[in-house]
Amino acid sequence: MTERFLSPGTRAEVEEGAALTPRFGPDGLVACIAVDAQDGRVLMLAHMNAESLGRTLETGEAWYWSRSRGELWHKGATSGQVQRVVEMRVDCDQDAILIRVDVGGDGGCCHTGRRSCFYRAVRRDPATGTVTLVPADPER
Amino acid sequence: MTERFLSPGTRAEVEEGAALTPRFGPDGLVACIAVDAQDGRVLMLAHMNAESLGRTLETGEAWYWSRSRGELWHKGATSGQVQRVVEMRVDCDQDAILIRVDVGGDGGCCHTGRRSCFYRAVRRDPATGTVTLVPADPER
Repeated sequence: MTERFLSPGTRAEVEEGAALTPRFGPDGLVACIAVDAQDGRVLMLAHMNAESLGRTLETGEAWYWSRSRGELWHKGATSGQVQRVVEMRVDCDQDAILIRVDVGGDGGCCHTGRRSCFYRAVRRDPATGTVTLVPADPER
Repeated sequence: MTERFLSPGTRAEVEEGAALTPRFGPDGLVACIAVDAQDGRVLMLAHMNAESLGRTLETGEAWYWSRSRGELWHKGATSGQVQRVVEMRVDCDQDAILIRVDVGGDGGCCHTGRRSCFYRAVRRDPATGTVTLVPADPER
């Protein structure tokens, strides 16, 4: 389905032009960051193929490609945590997408029940080099 | 260099445990989102292999893997836009990293001179389906 989008042009066109020409990886995917449109907090990182990117643009709701299940994934279709896209952005080289979303249902995002998937901080003891995960501040 | 990190265990261990066990993709990479520690805005998305993740933890500065150049990339080594890591987080299934950073130099991030790489919004005309890129609000 990559024919849904034009192929990337010159570097100047990709970085400064007005055409959306996503640079899908060898696996056909681009990374997509979802942030809460209300406060800007990062909710999750997932992936989109051309089909899911196209459906997201057409429907105004986030569609991803589930790498683990190998299938299109309409976020929230079963949980109610639908992500309504307030704004979509693309980065300089067009290999990453950012969406600012309003979250439906209980407002959460992570399948573990947390609001954000990034609920753990990585702590490193500089003396020993030991690395452990600790709960992250949910307010950040 | 993946031997720097333990392999992922059970799903419960990966999601709720205290061990950092990154799930590197077939290309040996995990995606990493860098956000400004001061205001939480998303600056960029890049990738890390085990070596760059290890160096980031050890030095407290962001190291990535440049997919285009095929080499380790100490962000800011030439531009001065070093990213000092205030906090690192990992997501539920440990295949994505989030770093909250203080940016050195002129405070920018993108090689085009912008503060963030996500400087364009994707606009779709619902009547025609035409998609164009427009400047995004730099304050968001």
